[in-house]
Amino acid sequence: MTETPHPLYATHADTLARALTAITERAYWSAFPESPSPRVYGETAAAEGEAAYRSYLDADFPLDQPGTQGRVATEASPFGFDLGVRYPHGDLDAMIAAATAALPSWRDAGPQARAGVCLEILARLHRHIFELANAVHATSGQAFVMAFQAGGAHALDRALEAIAYAYAEMTRHPGSAEWEKPAGKGDPLRMVKTFHVVPRGVALVIGCNTFPTWNSYPGLFASLVTGNPVVVKPHPGAVLPLAITVRYAREVLAEAGFDPNLVLLAAEEPGEKLATTLALRPEVRIIDFTGSTEYGDWLENNARQASVYTEKAGVNTIVIDSTDDFAGMCRNIGFSLTLYSGQMCTTPQNILIPAAGIDTDQGHKTFDEVTAGIAGVVGKLTGDPARAVELTGAIVNDGVLGRLDEVAGVGEVVLASRTVAHPTYADAVVRTPAIVRLGADDAQTYGREWFGPISFTISTDSTAHSLEILRKTVGAQGALTAAVYATDEKVLDAAEAAALDAGVHLSCNLTGGVFVNQSAAFSDFHASGANAAANAALTDGAYVANRFRVVQSRRHI
Amino acid sequence: MTETPHPLYATHADTLARALTAITERAYWSAFPESPSPRVYGETAAAEGEAAYRSYLDADFPLDQPGTQGRVATEASPFGFDLGVRYPHGDLDAMIAAATAALPSWRDAGPQARAGVCLEILARLHRHIFELANAVHATSGQAFVMAFQAGGAHALDRALEAIAYAYAEMTRHPGSAEWEKPAGKGDPLRMVKTFHVVPRGVALVIGCNTFPTWNSYPGLFASLVTGNPVVVKPHPGAVLPLAITVRYAREVLAEAGFDPNLVLLAAEEPGEKLATTLALRPEVRIIDFTGSTEYGDWLENNARQASVYTEKAGVNTIVIDSTDDFAGMCRNIGFSLTLYSGQMCTTPQNILIPAAGIDTDQGHKTFDEVTAGIAGVVGKLTGDPARAVELTGAIVNDGVLGRLDEVAGVGEVVLASRTVAHPTYADAVVRTPAIVRLGADDAQTYGREWFGPISFTISTDSTAHSLEILRKTVGAQGALTAAVYATDEKVLDAAEAAALDAGVHLSCNLTGGVFVNQSAAFSDFHASGANAAANAALTDGAYVANRFRVVQSRRHI
Repeated sequence: MTETPHPLYATHADTLARALTAITERAYWSAFPESPSPRVYGETAAAEGEAAYRSYLDADFPLDQPGTQGRVATEASPFGFDLGVRYPHGDLDAMIAAATAALPSWRDAGPQARAGVCLEILARLHRHIFELANAVHATSGQAFVMAFQAGGAHALDRALEAIAYAYAEMTRHPGSAEWEKPAGKGDPLRMVKTFHVVPRGVALVIGCNTFPTWNSYPGLFASLVTGNPVVVKPHPGAVLPLAITVRYAREVLAEAGFDPNLVLLAAEEPGEKLATTLALRPEVRIIDFTGSTEYGDWLENNARQASVYTEKAGVNTIVIDSTDDFAGMCRNIGFSLTLYSGQMCTTPQNILIPAAGIDTDQGHKTFDEVTAGIAGVVGKLTGDPARAVELTGAIVNDGVLGRLDEVAGVGEVVLASRTVAHPTYADAVVRTPAIVRLGADDAQTYGREWFGPISFTISTDSTAHSLEILRKTVGAQGALTAAVYATDEKVLDAAEAAALDAGVHLSCNLTGGVFVNQSAAFSDFHASGANAAANAALTDGAYVANRFRVVQSRRHI
Repeated sequence: MTETPHPLYATHADTLARALTAITERAYWSAFPESPSPRVYGETAAAEGEAAYRSYLDADFPLDQPGTQGRVATEASPFGFDLGVRYPHGDLDAMIAAATAALPSWRDAGPQARAGVCLEILARLHRHIFELANAVHATSGQAFVMAFQAGGAHALDRALEAIAYAYAEMTRHPGSAEWEKPAGKGDPLRMVKTFHVVPRGVALVIGCNTFPTWNSYPGLFASLVTGNPVVVKPHPGAVLPLAITVRYAREVLAEAGFDPNLVLLAAEEPGEKLATTLALRPEVRIIDFTGSTEYGDWLENNARQASVYTEKAGVNTIVIDSTDDFAGMCRNIGFSLTLYSGQMCTTPQNILIPAAGIDTDQGHKTFDEVTAGIAGVVGKLTGDPARAVELTGAIVNDGVLGRLDEVAGVGEVVLASRTVAHPTYADAVVRTPAIVRLGADDAQTYGREWFGPISFTISTDSTAHSLEILRKTVGAQGALTAAVYATDEKVLDAAEAAALDAGVHLSCNLTGGVFVNQSAAFSDFHASGANAAANAALTDGAYVANRFRVVQSRRHI
């Protein structure tokens, strides 16, 4: 630690310092501008990024990895075209061996050098943010602006947040310390102690189809900066954003004199079950996963040699008791349901409303009037196809379509899902949100996740009953988000108590420009790890602390 | 966090602040004096503590817990007498229910109040340190001074260290934060966010027979201060030290207006398998365990609802290459083998020496001369029974005696274990260390732990070969400690590289008053979590960060 800092650490020290402050304050901060405007990114950035993205299509992806034996191309865009990008496909043993061989020198480089290199990778990715955004847009089905923000700027912010937590954790005590213990009348005992940060082993990141970068970056960079080589196993439907990530990460690593095999892409044929094969390798000691509860639970129960971080399914819940801004409430909820056609892990599903209706600034509103208010906003937001698709994007897979069919039969359909013709992509699969009315007794329906543009308005006996249902369903199935609308502080307090018991983050009275399905890096924690929807939060101390160990040596001075 | 601090927080704020500094510096610091001298603790403390200890013998232990249905008395001292202390024994459902009911108000009290109460418990225990020391002495078989230090002062230091790490983790960001995001030309988005520390559930601490307080306190206090009620399941052979701990913890909790059922004692009949029953309860979400590899692995594999922290067996190793202080080296190693007759989890077992001998300040020493040097020190330290027992203490159980019998047949006995008559306790079971010579090929013998006063001098081809054996055996079985003796920096570097690869803490050239089996709170990490001997270190960020979650709520300002 007394040596000259690594040049890339020096380059990024100010950014890292600001990020370290941000995680202690958890107030507003962002390092990567979220507006794709030419005023921010320059007049040519958008076109250059799109061209770079297009150059990948129907071609071999430029990645020189050990063990490559062939190519795989697996991506069909929700917007209705095949990407045709051909990724290296190969020998897992060679990849694991290369990753393992890369570990010692990366470990010995120390926290500063690793942080500098990781921040340089973020800077490089940021320079290619339009390229990334196009890739996220095409593979996830997100509208472009959302892909730019969630898949580009916000993903980079979350990566930086994870690096900051990990750096803080690695450096919470010095690299070496002198110890001098008084020894009565004799000379004191004096020792120097060296504390080495030692990584756990090879880390595996298992990406998802909907947020290939945002959900993968925290784990990828938390593992990498703490010294672990990372194997990235993308979803076969969303390889390109992570392939681009791996490409620039390897480029930066090589330029900085490190082994590029610290970051590897493990693309697969559909049905190859590469995640399962990798997850059970003894060399793999850390796994980050986003996806189904079933597979997340399988990983937790079977990849016993690894620390496993999972984000799974849940039943996100809104409790409506009363509001002093009925129009704002309906606008806010309706927007949340429409954004990315409900395909966010944070989209509300269960909307609990007293059967007797609620008090509002517009007087008493019946249950049906509240439902109609929300449905009306969704209808308005999705009425014009050209504007609709910029909010909804496209449907990511057939599973969502199947649930949309199924849900029409489980209750009274308050708002039917519609097919929208995409003005640009003729074969895009676009659907508007469905809202179905249920009773409190229909827990066998609303008590599990219906991933996609599906939500339920559920009539309850009272707000107390609604909170009981929240405690019960979130307690059993977990949730990433909860919200409450109430004008009475006592009701807000009761909702907060229920949220604490269920271990779910709560948003209160959102009627403006903040939505329950959005979480801000450096301020909001995403997931809590305190319920069944996730076993960890992005991003906090617990998320990073187990990715390395401290091994000390000591000797007398 | 804006309210008046809890009075107990105010009382102990300076101590906590000093401890928080200590964990960032990892230099020398101690809060609890380790000398039992009357000059430190007063003229009457020793006699009063012993009297308090004696008042427990052959009597009902004063503990008023829910669910008590009878009493159990299970403790036979290694010094040859039954303690006859009768502990409450009862209904687990009632205990778990009481612990669960105590959680919400303890959670809602917040980090400051909980830290204040926990530090008051430590202060109360410190006031009763002689009582504790007598209890540890009688149940573990440690000599009195060691029981006072390891079981009293050092255990309290480790508890404080765990509290400091947990407090730092809980307060690394504020309890609430204002977030203001610029919104172009419009008004900024403004929210206030509250971050609640939410405990995981009921915590279980499974104590061991040899270090009932030292090994239990970090987990106990890390869990308690982060909001989790704690059920303490002591080893049936060492109940009293933890019963005293639970007694005073409950006393302080009740005085401070909290539910005393936040800390409960679960004493058991031998063979009752209470740890297993408790470990599988769904309410139990954190488990701390010290003991056998077999049972620790069982916990990790079966108590899947809980975060499990284990310290298990390992093969502690010394590599001897050369020394510039042959006499000091032999004294240091010989003392380490003798202390508590080798019944520390940190006692060296495998001493790797080149068959061709080593260079020393006394000229070349053959393998046999090195072995004889160490054996000679052990013989001298244990020659006089009265002095011997103040180092060795007594043998904790029949398993150790069985291994002593067995080991005599596995190689050439260089130093035979002897029976020593204890000058005070006629029925005490006292044995001196055995040293057995093996070859590098005898890995089936030295490759596993022989817990007790058993060590092996193992002849190797070279120091490089010794390091290869260290890598292999520690890599496979784990170790809590390793040491090297070498005069050449290159050899020390090679040993450090091997220690990093094996994930074991290394002590270099100990020839004075620091011993490889000792670790200093606030400076040395105990275990690393980086090899099979333990899945966590005492005490670091990773050890505390998963004992709670952060659940947030947010609303517009």
